[in-house]
Order: sequence, then structure tokens, then C-alpha cells
Amino acid sequence: MQIDSNSTGIVQTKFFTFAQDGDFNLTCGKSIGPVTIAYETYGELNGNKSNAVLILHALSGDAHAAGLHSREDKNPGWWDGYIGPGKPFDTDKYFFICSNVIGGCSGSTGPASVNPETGKHWGMDFPTVTIEDMVNAQYHLIESLGISKLLAVAGGSMGGMQALQWSISYPEMVNSCIAIATAASLSAQGIAFNEVGRQAIFNDPNWNEGNYYSGTIPGAGLSLARMIGHITYMSEKHMHEKFGREFQHEQTEHNISSKFSVESYLQYQGIKFVDRFDANSYIYITRAIDYFDLRDNEKKKLSFAFKRAMANFLVISFTTDWLYPTTAAKEFVKALRVTGKNVIFNEIATENGHDAFLLPNETLGKNIAGFLKNEYEKSESK
Amino acid sequence: MQIDSNSTGIVQTKFFTFAQDGDFNLTCGKSIGPVTIAYETYGELNGNKSNAVLILHALSGDAHAAGLHSREDKNPGWWDGYIGPGKPFDTDKYFFICSNVIGGCSGSTGPASVNPETGKHWGMDFPTVTIEDMVNAQYHLIESLGISKLLAVAGGSMGGMQALQWSISYPEMVNSCIAIATAASLSAQGIAFNEVGRQAIFNDPNWNEGNYYSGTIPGAGLSLARMIGHITYMSEKHMHEKFGREFQHEQTEHNISSKFSVESYLQYQGIKFVDRFDANSYIYITRAIDYFDLRDNEKKKLSFAFKRAMANFLVISFTTDWLYPTTAAKEFVKALRVTGKNVIFNEIATENGHDAFLLPNETLGKNIAGFLKNEYEKSESK
Repeated sequence: MQIDSNSTGIVQTKFFTFAQDGDFNLTCGKSIGPVTIAYETYGELNGNKSNAVLILHALSGDAHAAGLHSREDKNPGWWDGYIGPGKPFDTDKYFFICSNVIGGCSGSTGPASVNPETGKHWGMDFPTVTIEDMVNAQYHLIESLGISKLLAVAGGSMGGMQALQWSISYPEMVNSCIAIATAASLSAQGIAFNEVGRQAIFNDPNWNEGNYYSGTIPGAGLSLARMIGHITYMSEKHMHEKFGREFQHEQTEHNISSKFSVESYLQYQGIKFVDRFDANSYIYITRAIDYFDLRDNEKKKLSFAFKRAMANFLVISFTTDWLYPTTAAKEFVKALRVTGKNVIFNEIATENGHDAFLLPNETLGKNIAGFLKNEYEKSESK
Repeated sequence: MQIDSNSTGIVQTKFFTFAQDGDFNLTCGKSIGPVTIAYETYGELNGNKSNAVLILHALSGDAHAAGLHSREDKNPGWWDGYIGPGKPFDTDKYFFICSNVIGGCSGSTGPASVNPETGKHWGMDFPTVTIEDMVNAQYHLIESLGISKLLAVAGGSMGGMQALQWSISYPEMVNSCIAIATAASLSAQGIAFNEVGRQAIFNDPNWNEGNYYSGTIPGAGLSLARMIGHITYMSEKHMHEKFGREFQHEQTEHNISSKFSVESYLQYQGIKFVDRFDANSYIYITRAIDYFDLRDNEKKKLSFAFKRAMANFLVISFTTDWLYPTTAAKEFVKALRVTGKNVIFNEIATENGHDAFLLPNETLGKNIAGFLKNEYEKSESK
């Protein structure tokens, strides 16, 4: 297979292990270790290490953000449309690190890992992880790469939550922050959707309280959780235009099992997900999203949390995103401005709903490219 | 317990059985019988039988729309706020019939009934039913009561679908039609939500392909389906104001099992539902909602379907209803107007989402009362 000239090319997932003594402290009060974080890098780190951008993934993402794993690989990384030579996240100019999250299931330490103390899979004994823990683990990775300041941290959805958390947890290390389709805390409705997804897993008898690693995985439950999630990622209009009320197969008679196209699509998405994701990770990561609330840090106003941030911000929302709506973006944009931060905020018109940050969008690309260029030039001229 | 003066008082569910010879023809092509329909009546039918209003229920409703079943009964009927002496549906003036739907599980023939041919519960062998079948069954009930013309047919959500279907299936029998928070067909998003609810039931091992009547019911699956439904009945704003991000119990540490108030609420709603609803009925009735499409009748435009209707229409939508949004109401209002029907359309501002038609709403009450009064006076002066 020929690889496009605007592709990052063949990439490899790498692994970084730290806290060998079991001393990685989590916000829940427990400590774990050793902790492994899967990550990938694209582009070249420059001499003074000033062109590093940390890419942060969403709920179902992983370290593989761009390029291909082999010449036969048919699925490029999840943000391949935005990361590559000449792309908005331009690998000819910048060095990108994409890190899988702690609690995940794509090479990083999570509930599917073996607990060194018992020799068994952690399962639901894995300690609760938060967005802050994810960021703290990434800090160790960035430090190990000898990078003391990131040109930018960037992500959409839960990736945006991590980006915002980075700007507060490690203010001196974050030159700028790109937060897309995200919020300073999830809405009650968002929590409700995460909860019905978790219940779908809990209801699967194969889940077995999280102990399924030597048996049958709770595929039906995880698949249903993913189906529920997918509904929330699409706008009603996009769903209507994509599927309408069409049937998957032509039929002459309505019956209980007849499948509308939208149903087949969701079932396909659900089944596909089961092959690559761990049900317990789904539980842990959705909980981390639920608990994320920047207000918690100071127990009061959102603006208090951002006081210590030193980054410049690019905030993007999408008109038809009802899971992380523009109102949620405006809430933290306001708090950032109250504390005197430089913020560029743009609500992009699209019919693609929450999924818009993953789909081709010229405006999003231009916003990212322009912001990064400006931030890089400013930081180099200092 | 003292009964309020504006209550319909103690009422009884009645049962009407027809098609003793198994000759009730369904739209799927099959015939069944005998068919029993549970119903209740409130108020008095006048001498010339001109004050009868048929009340039509939604997915989870039943024949018990108003009053109490006993002095000890703590739960009045599902539309008790709107039906009673001096209420918008005024039992001092009109005679109300509320009929449970075929396929239901509250006294009417449905999948939980015994198939007379086998002596066993129908389960998933029950034939597919449609909104049209529900209306055709109600027709037999209305006929048996000696009523040749209904002053009005009225309902919200799936009840509104039945009301619209009545105006087309039996135009000469319908003087007026009150269609609230409804649509001439469900959106792709609505189908998707119904489908994940059904999948939640299918995934429950106790469902057993619908054969659970002599064993354990698929309570976990049905409960989850109801939880998913409940999210769609509330607006994001209403959910936020009711629950925000509060926890059910005060807690010092975040962990996987901690419950946000919104989660506890949904779980309570789910569990409560299992006591009164049959999982197979949930599957059949949501399918009837999915398949409802007034365009089907004439294979073309919606206006074609309404051509034969003779009723005057009151159509109500709610600003924050995202399951049956105002755009869906406007779609059939436009078709009604194109065919020269008298239509009063009102979009009511509320934060209560789709649930608004069941909750106290002064504007809704006034709209119904005024429309009914006008329709009654007009029909009496003819």
C-alpha cells in the first residue's frame, strides 16, 4: 500500500514505565506502581525542545493519533486528519506526543493490567482514577522526554478536559491550551448517559463484577454502552440526514426484528468497539469524566481554578454538539477571561454534533494551525 | 383518605372483549381474537352522546388516566392533573374514555396474554402491532359504547400519534383532535433511543427470547430501558436544575460506585417501572412507535394522508422537548394547513422537556379547555 505524502507514515506505539516502587499517588489517596503509559510521537523535537505538543485523547481513544502501524494497516490514527505533514498539527514544524490515559486499555496501566501484589488482573480492585491522575501520569512521561515546557496541550471531549487540567496542574509547563468540544464539568444529562452505559455493562452476566479476564468478556453490555454513547455523539440532524427512517434491507412487512438503518449502524459500532476496548476501562474512564469538575479544586468559583493557569487558550465548540454544548464552553471561557487569560473562542457551525472534532472540518483546521503558528512564533521570540 | 373535590373520585378499570372468533385483522396481515381492551370512563355521557372525548395514552401509560382506584390509593391516574371536575378535561361537562392499547400489559391483550390456540403466553409470538391497530381496537370499544362521533380524541407523545391516526382512519367519527408533544413519524434519533432500550431487554438473560412468564422477569433490562427513556423525557436544563452534579449521599471520596443524584433518580424510576410493566410489551409498543409514519398511508406526502381527515386540530409542542421537538409538530401542522384543515398550533415555553404534557402547565390547561369548549359549542349548534 502506498502511503500518502501527507501521512505521518509508519509509526510505533512506545511504552514508558515509572513509579517502579509503587509510589504513583492518585487523587483517591491510594498509590500504585509500576505504571506504564503507552504513547506515540510524530515529527521531530527541535534542539531547544520548544516545539512539543501533547495530544490528549477522548473516552474511547488511544495513543495512536496519527499515521499507520504497518503498510497493511487500513485504519490510520484517530486524529490523522489533523496530524501530519502540512496538516493543522504540522509534523514538519512541531513534535507531537499522544499519550494513552491511565485506566485505559491500549497499553497503559488500567483495570485489565495485572496487579503486581496479587498476580491477578486488577478488575474492579483498580483504584479510582481521575482526569487529574491522567495528567499527573502524563507529566512523568513528558519529564522523561526532557521537555520542560509544552508549546501546547490539545484535545477534544475528555481530551479537552485533560488539556484544561494540564493548564492548572502544571502551569509553568503549558505555553498554550487547545480545548475542543469540552467542559469544565459534565452536565447532569451527560452523567446520566454515562450511567446508563455503565449499567448496560453491569447488567451483562459475563461482566461478573469485573472478573472476566479469564472467561467470556461482557461484549453485549459494552456494545450497548457504545451504542448509547454514539447516539450522543451525533446531532439529531446529522442522524436524520445519514439514516432518516430508511431500513437496512428492503422489506415488505413490518415486524419486531426489522432493522432501521440507524439501528444497524449503532449495532455495528457497538460490536466493532468490543474488539478494541475493555469494559472495566469504560467504567473507570466514564467515572473520571463524571467526577471532573474544575470547581472542586478551590471549592468555589471556576475562575478561582484558572487563576494559576499561565497558558493562552484556544477554545472551540460546535453548534450542534449537545453533549458538550457551546454553553459549557462559554462557562469556562468566561472564567478564563475574568482571570485575565488570553482566550480565543470560536463556535464552529457544523451539523456533525460532538463528533465534529474528529471529522474533517476546514474551520477547525485553520483555527488550530493559526493558533499554533502564532504561539510558536511568540514563544521563539521571547 | 379524603378525596379532593376536584378529583374524579373512585374509578374502576373496565374490560371490553371483541373479535371472539379471532377475526381482528392487524396491519401485519395476521388476525387475532378474542381481544380485550382495558378502559376507564369519567363523567357522564349526555343524552345525544355528543360529549365523548377519547383519551389516548403514551408508551408507558394505561387506562387509568384520572381518579383513584380506592380510598387508600396514593397514585391518581396519569393525567389526573388535567381530567376532573373543573379541570381542562372537565368531567362536569364531558364524558371521557381512556383506553389501554392492544399490545399493552395493563389489562389489554398483548404479549403477556395467553394465546388461545396454544394455552401459553404469547411472548414474542404475539403479532406485530401498529398505532393503526391500536386505533382499530379502540374503534370497537367506542362502537360498543354506542358513540358514533367523538367530540375529541386527545393524547400526548404516542397518545398524540393515536389521535392523528384516529382523524385519518375514522374521519367521520372525529370532530376534533388534540395532539400534544407528538409527531407524524419518529426521528432517527428517537428510533435509536428506542432501539438501545430494546437491546437492554434483549441483553438480559432472563428475557429468554421473551419466554419468562413462568420464571424470573428481565427486570434489569427493562429497568435500564426505562432509565434511557427517562433521560429523553427531560430537558437538559430541567435535569440540571433538578439534580445538577449533586451526590445522593454526602461523601468524602470519589469512587466508582458513588452515586450522583441523577443516577439514583433514574435507577429509582427504572426499578419502579418493572413492577408495573411487561418487558415484551415495551418491545412491541416501542416498535409500533418506530414504525408509525403517516406518510406510509399514501406512500408520498404527509398532506396526502390528512386529506381525508375532517377534524379540527389543536396541536401543542414544548420548547424544550427534544424527543418530539417543535420542528416535528410544525411538519404535520403544515401538512394539515395545506389540506385546508382548521389548526390551532401553540408552542408552549417550558423547561420540562417532553414530560411537560404530563406535568402541571397552566397554558396547556387553558389551551385544552378553550379548544374543547369551542368545539363543543360549535358541534351542539349544528
